Amino acid sequence: MEKSFAQWKKQCLNKADLSKKGAVDEAIEHVVSLLNSREEYFTTSSCSGRVILIDGAPESSAVQKQNCAWLFVSHHKCTSEDLLSALAGCSGDAVLKFEPFVLHVQCRRLEDAQLMHSVAIDSGFRNSGLTVGKKGKIITAVRSTHGLEVPLSHDGTLLLPQEYITYLTQVANQKMEENHRRIFSRFYQNLHSALLTEKLQRVQIQDPHDAPETEKGTDEEEEKEERKKTSVYKRRRKREQHETDGCHGDGDCSVPGLEDCLDLFT
Amino acid sequence: MEKSFAQWKKQCLNKADLSKKGAVDEAIEHVVSLLNSREEYFTTSSCSGRVILIDGAPESSAVQKQNCAWLFVSHHKCTSEDLLSALAGCSGDAVLKFEPFVLHVQCRRLEDAQLMHSVAIDSGFRNSGLTVGKKGKIITAVRSTHGLEVPLSHDGTLLLPQEYITYLTQVANQKMEENHRRIFSRFYQNLHSALLTEKLQRVQIQDPHDAPETEKGTDEEEEKEERKKTSVYKRRRKREQHETDGCHGDGDCSVPGLEDCLDLFT
Repeated sequence: MEKSFAQWKKQCLNKADLSKKGAVDEAIEHVVSLLNSREEYFTTSSCSGRVILIDGAPESSAVQKQNCAWLFVSHHKCTSEDLLSALAGCSGDAVLKFEPFVLHVQCRRLEDAQLMHSVAIDSGFRNSGLTVGKKGKIITAVRSTHGLEVPLSHDGTLLLPQEYITYLTQVANQKMEENHRRIFSRFYQNLHSALLTEKLQRVQIQDPHDAPETEKGTDEEEEKEERKKTSVYKRRRKREQHETDGCHGDGDCSVPGLEDCLDLFT
Repeated sequence: MEKSFAQWKKQCLNKADLSKKGAVDEAIEHVVSLLNSREEYFTTSSCSGRVILIDGAPESSAVQKQNCAWLFVSHHKCTSEDLLSALAGCSGDAVLKFEPFVLHVQCRRLEDAQLMHSVAIDSGFRNSGLTVGKKGKIITAVRSTHGLEVPLSHDGTLLLPQEYITYLTQVANQKMEENHRRIFSRFYQNLHSALLTEKLQRVQIQDPHDAPETEKGTDEEEEKEERKKTSVYKRRRKREQHETDGCHGDGDCSVPGLEDCLDLFT
């Protein structure tokens, strides 16, 4: 399994970047670099977040994206002029979307995936989850819920006044800003702390100068035990939900299990 | 672990339903019943899908939902009159959302979670994923991406013409219809087939009348092997993507791993 993961990693990182852009988004280069520098992880796909305007075929299903043209895409804030001039080219059912940060990380072991998942949830990316494939491939998907999806035209006719497009642009930009803040101030920081803590704990466990453990430890050993237990990565406080998460909370039981992920190092 | 799962299940199913509605949504009762009738699963929260109108405090963050009032909610199709009369009561930044089917299922073992995850992905719920908690709690979250989020008012002032609200209602209803179709015609059917196949395979493996396997099996044994391999739950064809999934595909590598889940019984 160990050799297989290293091979997977080597193969993936040597492949050509197949995205439309052909490179990792600038805003998340540091996240991607940090992960790819670690033995236990490599990123397989990512997007820092984007505003897109897509033009669907008239009368196509509300959820199908066949026959869609991309009128506009930006990974940064944009202006209402950007959107209005892109809309001038629409001929069907144009829809504006804001899609937040997404990251797929392949992980060596399940506990590595659990760490990544905990970091993601604690950073506000509440739709994150794991995939465990039959062949042993373990992926953590970092996903958020806060987005926009707004129909703007039908059969090529713009349905909304210009003032609304201006307002909508502001809303989209606020979401982009919040999205970037979460990546930098929360996800990257939490990830860095969690990885550092995990590394320190491993070093402590492997320290050949540690006296063998006995039932009644010395003061020094008790202190080391205490340091192992202390974690920068504290248990998440139950926050008020600031956004819709995958489970709307309108179901038959409360949402279980997500909090458990954060007990990894406490 | 086995005893612990049964205890978890008993505890959860005996709890009062804490949702606003106080009961499982009618549209997914059959899904919930099927899962709760199986030893390996129980549902912890669910929502069949909904259209909601929420009124946020003016100038609150675009993503925060503190100080939000619910103006309207429906788990079925609705009318533009429903929305317009609800909007008459708004005083801040009202937003219309369509949120599709969500389900959280606690699973006894990782392979049970993998089955559930595969069924979810194959049924179009592409934001689905697992949570593996520190205490051994394994949850599959069934989630989709296809939604709506449309700002409708600002500081209590409706920003859009009535004709747009009418059009938006149609779009939301189409999404609700597609959502229900996915639950009935895809998710429930796929789930039922996958569980049946898994049960048949277990019965075959445990059959005391099976002769011991030898390298050169008899015709009968080869036939049994063949039946074990044949699965109602076929490998998913690579479809054109009909919806945005968690990874926009605008990243540094192609999306890996999700297809592996579907190899469970092939």
